Amino acid sequence: MAQQENQLFKKFLDLKNSSGSHSPSVMTLREKMPELDIKVDACFLSNPYATELFLKYLNDDLNSKLSLRDLLEFYPSTNEIISDQLSKAIDVDKRNIFVCNGAIEAIQTVIHNFTKDKIIVNIPTFSSYYEFVKPDIEVVYYRLKKYENFKLNIDEYIKFVKKNKPNTVVLINPNNPDGSYIEFETLDYILNELTDIENIIIDESFIHFAYEDKSLSPVSVTKLLYKYNNLIVIKSMSKDFGIAGIRAGYAIMSESKIKNLLKNGFLWNSNGFSEYFFRLYGNNTFLNDYEIVRKKYIKETSAFFKKLDTINRIKIYPSKANFVLIELINEKSSDNIVSDLLINHGVYVRTCSDKIGLDGNFIRLASRTFDHNEIIYDSLLSIF
Amino acid sequence: MAQQENQLFKKFLDLKNSSGSHSPSVMTLREKMPELDIKVDACFLSNPYATELFLKYLNDDLNSKLSLRDLLEFYPSTNEIISDQLSKAIDVDKRNIFVCNGAIEAIQTVIHNFTKDKIIVNIPTFSSYYEFVKPDIEVVYYRLKKYENFKLNIDEYIKFVKKNKPNTVVLINPNNPDGSYIEFETLDYILNELTDIENIIIDESFIHFAYEDKSLSPVSVTKLLYKYNNLIVIKSMSKDFGIAGIRAGYAIMSESKIKNLLKNGFLWNSNGFSEYFFRLYGNNTFLNDYEIVRKKYIKETSAFFKKLDTINRIKIYPSKANFVLIELINEKSSDNIVSDLLINHGVYVRTCSDKIGLDGNFIRLASRTFDHNEIIYDSLLSIF
Repeated sequence: MAQQENQLFKKFLDLKNSSGSHSPSVMTLREKMPELDIKVDACFLSNPYATELFLKYLNDDLNSKLSLRDLLEFYPSTNEIISDQLSKAIDVDKRNIFVCNGAIEAIQTVIHNFTKDKIIVNIPTFSSYYEFVKPDIEVVYYRLKKYENFKLNIDEYIKFVKKNKPNTVVLINPNNPDGSYIEFETLDYILNELTDIENIIIDESFIHFAYEDKSLSPVSVTKLLYKYNNLIVIKSMSKDFGIAGIRAGYAIMSESKIKNLLKNGFLWNSNGFSEYFFRLYGNNTFLNDYEIVRKKYIKETSAFFKKLDTINRIKIYPSKANFVLIELINEKSSDNIVSDLLINHGVYVRTCSDKIGLDGNFIRLASRTFDHNEIIYDSLLSIF
Repeated sequence: MAQQENQLFKKFLDLKNSSGSHSPSVMTLREKMPELDIKVDACFLSNPYATELFLKYLNDDLNSKLSLRDLLEFYPSTNEIISDQLSKAIDVDKRNIFVCNGAIEAIQTVIHNFTKDKIIVNIPTFSSYYEFVKPDIEVVYYRLKKYENFKLNIDEYIKFVKKNKPNTVVLINPNNPDGSYIEFETLDYILNELTDIENIIIDESFIHFAYEDKSLSPVSVTKLLYKYNNLIVIKSMSKDFGIAGIRAGYAIMSESKIKNLLKNGFLWNSNGFSEYFFRLYGNNTFLNDYEIVRKKYIKETSAFFKKLDTINRIKIYPSKANFVLIELINEKSSDNIVSDLLINHGVYVRTCSDKIGLDGNFIRLASRTFDHNEIIYDSLLSIF
């Protein structure tokens, strides 16, 4: 490695280490390492076509009926009013909806308020699910197996949960960081087996990228709430709609849990833009347009992953999300490859060296636009 | 009252009642009661000149270096990075700053995490300070006296606190809804007397409208944090900067309290626009321009309140905030006057009929632009 490259590598690792169990954002990288020429942010798990669509609607509205000043100046509506707006879009009674400042607020709120004694978290996972747990609560890890492609071993898992008797379990579907998917029928079976567990959290933040048949329609467990009172569905809008900066998310749970949360808090946790988004989400024209970009993105993503699978010396794990977990065979460190991709190719991918429950060297890579995916593919091909 | 007016009055009261202890927003009113012609929103406690200034900077930046897409698409920075940005603007160590999704998140977080056993809340007050308290905690009310113009009776208050031995006390300065102000020296004296109380919350959300001498400079207790480890300062940015839709706020507290909060939560509670605002807040050119509109607004507000004081049959209570509490002498109900102002004059003011600790009929009225203040004055004059 040339001396300059070495220095950049060190600087990047320092930034990464100071970001804890999350990657520094591209904006932070651009600010702190202006010498980098970042072409593709493949860390960033969102549908870029949906961002474009949202911006088109927002700009059209700003040019006609919507005032930017109104969005910024006035208090947004209260939680219950926004739940009412969202209710129509997702066909869930507003009394079961908890609107929040990004899914991360739902994760924190559910874990701080409803998790008692013990929680089972499947690893590898999104780290907040164990990092947000308060110190007096035991975290028990259930390990997804590499030799099973990180796919949940249903019967073993159910046995594990029943034996450990936690108050809360978490399933991310598709799972982050590997993209493994649990079918709706299977989740129904799991929920049916685990009615004794107080909280079954199913995080569907990536569900819009998953499908079970050729219609490419997502299959949400939301409707199972009326069958299983212990179900809590957590949903980010940042990934599917490509609007992480807005901080829009929600959770679906029993009416008594919602009442418990709203009776002494969470009054005004939406901002002007998230309220605008939740209103737009109830607009059928927007939803029809969204379906087009969602399916386009799924098809491109699937083709991209197939193409990546032809590269030697890397293993692509099966994914129904918009990202793929890649094992670097015979590599000493994923950090080296991440730095090489960033510094020499301008492709920013996520190292998984900080993820617990991963044996080996892994990177996680998001599908972006068709053109960006080509750049990612070419860069990987030139390295491996 | 004519029949149509009667119906509108009823509709408005229904909306008000469904909003709990808060007023329906003008946007909700416009949506649900389009037959109203609202000219002035005097419920809304913000400096409208500051909103204009912020919009000017935002639009200039959007036309040059800033991309709206970046604000909406990407993850904002984490709490600690934004604290670091804010640190320079408010001259407080970042280890003492808790950035939040509006001051309301700080109120909720502090009360849910640090309040134990008993809290003393002065009434009348901002209702969240007692509504957010969890059921197992006792709320003790200390009553501000009408005959003392709602000004805190310092020695009596200190005696009351020492006798009751709460774990938390709350002082809003200037107080909402009356605008009474406690001088810095007095707060220093109170803090010195109450070092045994675990949490002294001082809410300075309206402090930018208060001053102690001709310089019109606000005098914050923030710097007293290094003298009193139990001090918690809560600060909204919605009022002084006129940006409620962005949800920007922060709290200042001891390093151990901040660590306690950040170790298992509050990772990404800012949005793209609040991060933009906190960066702008560190910009000296912006701050110089802000000082101009802040002082202009204070001077107009003070002149407006003096003019209101000449109207018969209403009593104006002394205020150092951007709003004034008005007692309606010999009126049977403040709701009638609020409806009259809204329906017949297009002036939306806040009834205080839901405020605990107020004997009599009161409205709260915000200072707006010079022209809007003229409309408010003329409307009140025509009624009284």
